[in-house]
Formats: sequence, C-alpha cells, structure tokens
Amino acid sequence: MPTSTLVALLHGPDQPGIVARVAGWIFERGGNILHADQHRDMEAGIFFQRIEWQPANGNTSADTRAFHDFAAALGMKSRVTSSAHRPRMAVFVSKFDHCFHDLALRWKSGEYACDLVAVVSNHSDLEASASGYGLPYHVIPVTAATKAEGEARQLALLRELDVELVVLARYMQVLSDDFLKKFARPVINIHHSFLPAFAGGRPYHQAAERGVKLIGATAHYATAVLDDGPIIQQDVTRVTHRHGVEDLVRKGRDLEKIVLAQAVRWHLENRVLVYGNKTVVFD
Amino acid sequence: MPTSTLVALLHGPDQPGIVARVAGWIFERGGNILHADQHRDMEAGIFFQRIEWQPANGNTSADTRAFHDFAAALGMKSRVTSSAHRPRMAVFVSKFDHCFHDLALRWKSGEYACDLVAVVSNHSDLEASASGYGLPYHVIPVTAATKAEGEARQLALLRELDVELVVLARYMQVLSDDFLKKFARPVINIHHSFLPAFAGGRPYHQAAERGVKLIGATAHYATAVLDDGPIIQQDVTRVTHRHGVEDLVRKGRDLEKIVLAQAVRWHLENRVLVYGNKTVVFD
Amino acid sequence: MPTSTLVALLHGPDQPGIVARVAGWIFERGGNILHADQHRDMEAGIFFQRIEWQPANGNTSADTRAFHDFAAALGMKSRVTSSAHRPRMAVFVSKFDHCFHDLALRWKSGEYACDLVAVVSNHSDLEASASGYGLPYHVIPVTAATKAEGEARQLALLRELDVELVVLARYMQVLSDDFLKKFARPVINIHHSFLPAFAGGRPYHQAAERGVKLIGATAHYATAVLDDGPIIQQDVTRVTHRHGVEDLVRKGRDLEKIVLAQAVRWHLENRVLVYGNKTVVFD
Amino acid sequence: MPTSTLVALLHGPDQPGIVARVAGWIFERGGNILHADQHRDMEAGIFFQRIEWQPANGNTSADTRAFHDFAAALGMKSRVTSSAHRPRMAVFVSKFDHCFHDLALRWKSGEYACDLVAVVSNHSDLEASASGYGLPYHVIPVTAATKAEGEARQLALLRELDVELVVLARYMQVLSDDFLKKFARPVINIHHSFLPAFAGGRPYHQAAERGVKLIGATAHYATAVLDDGPIIQQDVTRVTHRHGVEDLVRKGRDLEKIVLAQAVRWHLENRVLVYGNKTVVFD
Repeated sequence: MPTSTLVALLHGPDQPGIVARVAGWIFERGGNILHADQHRDMEAGIFFQRIEWQPANGNTSADTRAFHDFAAALGMKSRVTSSAHRPRMAVFVSKFDHCFHDLALRWKSGEYACDLVAVVSNHSDLEASASGYGLPYHVIPVTAATKAEGEARQLALLRELDVELVVLARYMQVLSDDFLKKFARPVINIHHSFLPAFAGGRPYHQAAERGVKLIGATAHYATAVLDDGPIIQQDVTRVTHRHGVEDLVRKGRDLEKIVLAQAVRWHLENRVLVYGNKTVVFD
Repeated sequence: MPTSTLVALLHGPDQPGIVARVAGWIFERGGNILHADQHRDMEAGIFFQRIEWQPANGNTSADTRAFHDFAAALGMKSRVTSSAHRPRMAVFVSKFDHCFHDLALRWKSGEYACDLVAVVSNHSDLEASASGYGLPYHVIPVTAATKAEGEARQLALLRELDVELVVLARYMQVLSDDFLKKFARPVINIHHSFLPAFAGGRPYHQAAERGVKLIGATAHYATAVLDDGPIIQQDVTRVTHRHGVEDLVRKGRDLEKIVLAQAVRWHLENRVLVYGNKTVVFD
Repeated sequence: MPTSTLVALLHGPDQPGIVARVAGWIFERGGNILHADQHRDMEAGIFFQRIEWQPANGNTSADTRAFHDFAAALGMKSRVTSSAHRPRMAVFVSKFDHCFHDLALRWKSGEYACDLVAVVSNHSDLEASASGYGLPYHVIPVTAATKAEGEARQLALLRELDVELVVLARYMQVLSDDFLKKFARPVINIHHSFLPAFAGGRPYHQAAERGVKLIGATAHYATAVLDDGPIIQQDVTRVTHRHGVEDLVRKGRDLEKIVLAQAVRWHLENRVLVYGNKTVVFD
Repeated sequence: MPTSTLVALLHGPDQPGIVARVAGWIFERGGNILHADQHRDMEAGIFFQRIEWQPANGNTSADTRAFHDFAAALGMKSRVTSSAHRPRMAVFVSKFDHCFHDLALRWKSGEYACDLVAVVSNHSDLEASASGYGLPYHVIPVTAATKAEGEARQLALLRELDVELVVLARYMQVLSDDFLKKFARPVINIHHSFLPAFAGGRPYHQAAERGVKLIGATAHYATAVLDDGPIIQQDVTRVTHRHGVEDLVRKGRDLEKIVLAQAVRWHLENRVLVYGNKTVVFD
C-alpha cells in the first residue's frame, strides 16, 4: 500500500514559471508528484493548485513546514496536509435523520478518512440512532433565549474535542457570526434548494409556490450571511405538477444526502479551496 | 394514418364523477378517447385534464363547440383544438442566432405542427439566415425612445398575420405590459438562468459571480413581471471553476436551445395548461 | 384524511370506448375516481390503465371482486389492490450492506407502505445491522452443492411468512428458474450496470475495461434468464478516466441505492404493469 | 490577446519526477505553462499528460520538434500542436441532416477552431444545405458492389484536401478496415445508442424492444471493429413506455447532436488521448 503522501492547496498571484517552480521544489527534495491540478483565474490573475506527492523518506512533517515557507516566499497561501492525518469531525443535527444516517453509514463503511468524534443536537431525538453507530451524542439545547449560552457550550465541546470540521446535517439553527468567528474552522451546511434560489426558510414550499420544474440542494461553507457562503456542490432533480410539497420534501431528501456526502468527501480529501465567496474544487 | 382528433384542456373546481362524466360525454357522441390525463390540486381543489379523442364522423367543429358548452356547464374552463389546426407562429430575435436556427430547423424538419409565418427583429442581422429558410423577416427597430411605436407596429403585424403564438428566441427587448395585454395570446420566452435565480440582465455573469456549480435555462410564458411568468420547462448543466463567463455563455446556448424547443413543442401539442402563476404540463 | 382507495392495474386488447366504460362502471357504483392514467401500445393494440378510486361506503372488498369480473368481461387482465393492504416484503442480502441500509431506513421512516417481515441471507454478516432495525434475520446458506436445499428452505420461509415481494439487495446468488416458478410472486433485483450492457458478473470491471463514460444501475424483475427481466428503473452517473474500478464501485453504490429504492416504491404503489418483457410504469 | 501556444499530449511508462521534468524543460527554455493536467493509470503504470504553454519568443516550430525529441528520450509518445494550426476537417453524411446542421452551425459561429473543407456523401440529399453554408459537397456513391471504388475516391479526395479529421455525422456506411488503415488519421463516429448496448443496426428499435428506461448516444473513434472503438463521450436521456420508436428517434437526435459536437470539440482542442481501446479526455 502507498506510504504517506502530502497534499498542498495553494493560491496566490499568478506568475510565470510557477508550475515548474513548485514541481522543481518537490523534485529537488526527492519527492515524487502523484497528482497535480492547477487553475488560473485569468481575470483576477490568481493561480490555484492542488498537488500531491510522496516525500523522500516519508519525511512528511519537515516537508510540510518547508513547503509552507517555500509557498510563502512565492507570495502564495498554502495548506499542506498529510494523508496520515485523520481530521476530527462533528455532525450537528436536529430532528431530521436522513443526512445523519447517510453520513454515519459512509463513515462506518470507511468511505471517509476522518474520525467522527461527536454528534451534537438541540434535541434528543437522534440519540438512539447515534448510539447504534457507537457515536457520542451531546444534547445542547438552543432556543432564541439561550442561543449565546448554547453556542458557548458547543464551542467549548468542539475545542475540547479538537474538532476540525463541523457538518450541519439539516441542523435547524443558524450559527451566529460570533460562533463562526470563534470556531474559525470550516463548517459545511446543506441547504435544501438550488441556491441562490429559495434561500431562507421553507425552500420546498417556496419552490412549489413558484412552480419550478427542478428542485435542488446546495452544500456550502457556512458564513455570517445566511445561505450565502461559498458553494461546494449542487444538484437538482426533476419535479412536475404532480408533486406536492410533501413529494418535494421526500425527493429532496435523496438530493440532500448525496450533495452533502459529496461535499464532505471533497473537503476531507483536501480538494476544496475557498477564495472570495467561491470555491475551486479539484475533483 | 389517423383522422383528425380533438384535444381539450380543461380545468375548474374538482367534483365527484368528473372523470366519468367527461369520458361518458365523448363516448355517448360516438367518440373514441385516445389519451386522457388528469391532475388534481388537492389543496386548491382544482381538477385539470387533457383529453384527446376521435369524434364520430370526424365531426370536429360541432364537437368543439359542444364540448366547450358541456365543460362550461360543469363550471370548467376549456380550450379545444383540432389536430388539423396548424397554429401560426412568429419568432422574435435580436442578434443571437442559436435559438433561431434551432427552431427553424426543427420546423423545417416537420417536428413542429405549426406555420412559422414571420421572423421579427429589432436588427437586420439575421435577415440572410431567415431568407435561407424561406422565412419572411421583418425589421422593426425598438429603442427606449421608440418603444411604443415599435410595439404598435409589431402588434399590427401580428394581427395582420393572425399570429397565435410568439416565441422570443433570445429577443433582447422586454415586451411591455401593454403589448402583452393587447396581443392577448401566448408569448414564450427563454431566460438564460435557472429561475428564480438570476432573473434580470446578465445571468451568466451573475452565475459566475456567485460561484454556482450548475447553470440553467428556463422557458416561461411572458407576463408583465419580468422573468416571473409561469415556467414551462427548465434544465441545467454542470459547470466548474474552470468555466469562465464565456464558457457559461457557450454551454448555456445548448441548454437554451433544448429548453426552448421542448417548451414550444409542448405548447404546440396543447400539453400546457396555465393556472395562477404555474403550469400543468401533460407530457 | 382519505379513506381507503382501490387501485386497479389492467391491460388487454384495445377497444373503442374502453376509457369511458371503466370510468362509467366506477361512477355508476358511486365511486369517485382520484387518478386515472392510461397508455396504448398502438403497434401491439394493447390498452393499459392504472385507475384509483374511492368506492362508495368504503366498500372495497366487494368492489375488488366486482371490478375483476367486469375487466374480465372486457377481455382484460386486472389486479386490484386496496390502499389499506400492506404487502409483506422480504429482503435478500449477502455481504454488501448499502442497499440493505437504504431500504431499511426508508421503511423505518415510513416511506414504504409495506411490512418488512424478513431479511434472508446466505451469510451472517448483516445480522447485527438487521437487529439494529428490529428485523428478523434468517441465515440460509447457499452453495453450488446445497442450492436446491437452500432454495427449498427459502421458499418454505417465504410461504410461512406469506411474503408477497422479494427484493434482492445485492444478493450475490442467482435464483433458479424453479425457485421463481414456485414462488410465483414478484422478485425485484438490482444489477450494477446499465442493462443490457455488462450483464453477468463483475460489471464495473467490464465497464472500466470498455472505457465507458457513464456507469449505470438497473432494477428489474428477476426471470429465468439472468439479468434479462423486465426493467423497472435505470439511472447512470458520469465517470472519467480518473475513476478506477474501486471508484466505479463506490459511485455505483449511490446509484444502486437510488434506483432500487425507486423501483421498490413504484412496485409497492401498484404503479408497475409487466407485459411481455417490458414494464409500463405509471409514475 | 494570447499569442500562440503549444499543446502537448504525451504518454508512456510512469517514472519518478516526470511532472517536474516536463515542467522544468519548458521553464528552462523560457516557456510559461498555462495549463497542465496529468493522469496515472496505476494498474498499467502509464503516465498521461496534456500540457499547454507559451514558448519564449513565440518559437513554436522549434519547440514542437524539441519537445517531441525530449519526450522520446523519456520513452514517451507525444503529439505537439500549435494553437495557430487550424486542422482541416471533412464531414461525411448520408440523408439524416440534424448532426450535419449542428456541426455546420457551430463551425460557422466560430465554436470550432478548424477549417471545414468538405462534405462527403453517398447521396445528393444534403447538397443544397451544404451550399447554404458555403461548403463544398462531394457525392461519392457507395454501394455493396462499388464500396472499394467509392472508398478509393474518398481517400483520394481526403488526401488531395489534406484532411486531418473525418467526422461521420450519421453516415450510414461502415468504413472498411482498409480505408481506416490507409487514411491513418482520426475518424469520429456517432452511434445512436449507449454503447456497448445496442451496437449494430437499428439501435432505437433494439432499445424499444428491450424496454430500457434511458436511451443514449456514443461518440467514438472508428476502428476496424464496428461500434467498438475508443469512446470519447456518451450521454443519455430518459424515456418511458409512452415513447414509441419514432419518439426515441426524435429524442435521440438531440442527444446525437450534443454528444458528437462535444467529442469533436474536445478532439479539436487536443484534449483526447487514445490508449488501448480507451480514451483519456483532459476536459
């Protein structure tokens, strides 16, 4: 089986020779490039790259620091991750369970290279399901009145567990700007519409009202502006006049699962690079 | 080959026995039902039906009137059309020609059971193309200053030609509410986004700006509110960060063609029933 | 909420007035038609219909028999089912668990109007998972040498439990013609390719070998000819040269789940009518 | 606007440092890499790359030769093309015109960077259409009896015109192995099924007979084995029991157009690399 590899995501001002320089740096240190994918935003003059390599002698931690410095010297921001690192993930849920089961089953089957360390909910409804998967379940009630306190408890838990990724699996609360700033790590949300259409509440009702012929789901990083963060993945499915709101909800569940699962997978594989309010997904 | 058939589109308050009553009425007059498709909006209590039959003795015009009266007696609105009737269609264009060529080629190949009687444009750019298809081309300039006058000339032409359907094939002018009221017949527009996302101008630029992962096209009946009329058909195609605005425009052309072509086809086959701001499409 | 309804699936030689006659029969007995969908195979001269109605006074069992006789008098085969009836379903599994979890979760969430009465397997691998859902699990080993005996035990179990539908959820054994004849009730299988391409074993390997750009999944009724029964549902997903066989397997799992789930749903809602080696799906 | 660029497609035995070596070679000669995309077939141990760069001083012809030698020294096969080069393309047609119109319109609109130098047909049916686009039309009759002679005339014409790509736009004759060997340049064919399902004649009839729920189209390079060459692109569309063979034919036309157009585009942009009986498409 392959030894550890490193994956770097880097971006910064485009410059002549950048592809050769990065490849050369790795080569000179005895590394072997397995995958390299780059993109140029011609208008903005930005260069983006995802590059994966086997460092000589499995020397991952030294190379991680060294690559970071090298990229910085080129004026590039970089994030370097070892394939041996398993990020620690928490899933937030409320009462809907379809996305939760989908994520938990994928995780159990080994589809996700991460540790699912906590399920956090404002309700106890999914506690038995979480136990069935052997997952620790934390009930932290959040109401309009107790939001600040609830978020403080959530943050304390995430820090204690050193959680590196939060996935909102149809969690029905909006995380405050303050929470996001303090957590300062990625939060992936699934919204049950084809954003930017039908942002906000009850998107399936909005879709039925408008008479659209396709409904969608959108996985995005949560930001301070509701349903407006960088989009990672979207998909749609066809509906007709025969489908009432309940049918949209049912059909939408399958969409939500598949779109969220794909976004989480890409994130965990270090394929998603955020810039401005958009993403580059190296798939 | 089949003799003439009649197609009725009817809708009105749902009532017990309505399916049997309509079928019975046709049967008693010696008609043979070929297709029947119905829908109930349970919430609104409305019944919708598309029914196609061969009247006895090919007695289409008498049956047309009689069915209309019968439906009215049940409190239903109806539109009855003979398959022998070829509606008269006009296509409005500006400078983009992809939807125009697509419609003209489908029409020439016999895919549309209609007479394409006029191409109307505010520019002369597509005149040679229209001539190549043997289609009369009318240049009627429309500017902010001459809009009222231009629309009056357009209306006069449509009336003179007894046009029953106008298709806006990437026509870059907004038809005024006054025009739509006076024409009082269906106008189908193609908008180059997945409505309600990115209504208004430059939707591909808006899409690129927002970083969506799918772009769409929407065919809808034009109403007084821009890009807000009843949606007939929509479709999407996948895009990535690699696609700049020009790529979206190019990929979008294929979407626009196919979505508009399908909407026009359904309309011509009397498969589209409008109610409120939505459509029932009996496909 | 609605009282019990009846759903009839009927087909037989096309004849003038058939739509009106069926509707009239229901109407005369005080029934109210909720949905009616019909199809004519013009070439073969066959009429197909799915019709759903509320019988007067909730008189479902009398109407069931009477409708059957009425259809027979028209030369039509019919199957009439009450919405109050919950079919008894068994799921056959081997070692892959994704389709099993998907079906079990949909059933638990109330998406399927059936009783899931048994999980049958030639291995014990999924026993704990079945227990987690509270489902009885029966290990009946089947090898080349013990196939006849194993199938006899399976049949005895299915009869004892009065199972009306068997779903093969990636069950890795081929059911013998003898088994299918003796069971004489529907068996739905999921095959992991876009049939008729890549029938038989290792379809993802075949797909990778051939270099196709889409992979598929097919849900069909099992017949004596392997992977050749009437197709209920199919879908595909895009792959590229970057996807090795393992990726096809992973991506295929999501396809298999969704295609099988849809086919089972349509079957349970009495929407699937088999004729010849094809299906009419009234969706 | 960008000056001329070079695109190299190369493949050969995988080797450590290959990405860095190629990038380094270009960099050392003053070139600026615009795009680079690579793939490893891990099982077969083959490395594939598409790399596009601006050579120093626009020195394209010297760099073309030099790169070819450099790649050969690494044991790699390569094809290097200047963006200034417009390949000469011929389209073969019979009587169906939809793919022909689609290609011709895309070419006229500037979507294809090639010279469409000839339309070749075994019938005169599309002569007027070709004239409308200003395209030279060559009638070369081909029957079972005259096939060898017809193909000899076709080959002579292709050589005289220095044609570099032949597109079979629903050309209803099979090109002989002898023709393909002598032409020895790429020939792209569109087959109206989702290969390998329904190879050979009358695929829509085969599809209707089998009762599939999706129909497809496949663009592939023509080889000596009918409908078995390396697949470039495929797509499908949904059909139901309501669609007779004529509907499949009509719906299939739209698929054929879009699939063939995409394959031709990728080929012209030097994005398709053939190995074994498969393609790597760098899109």
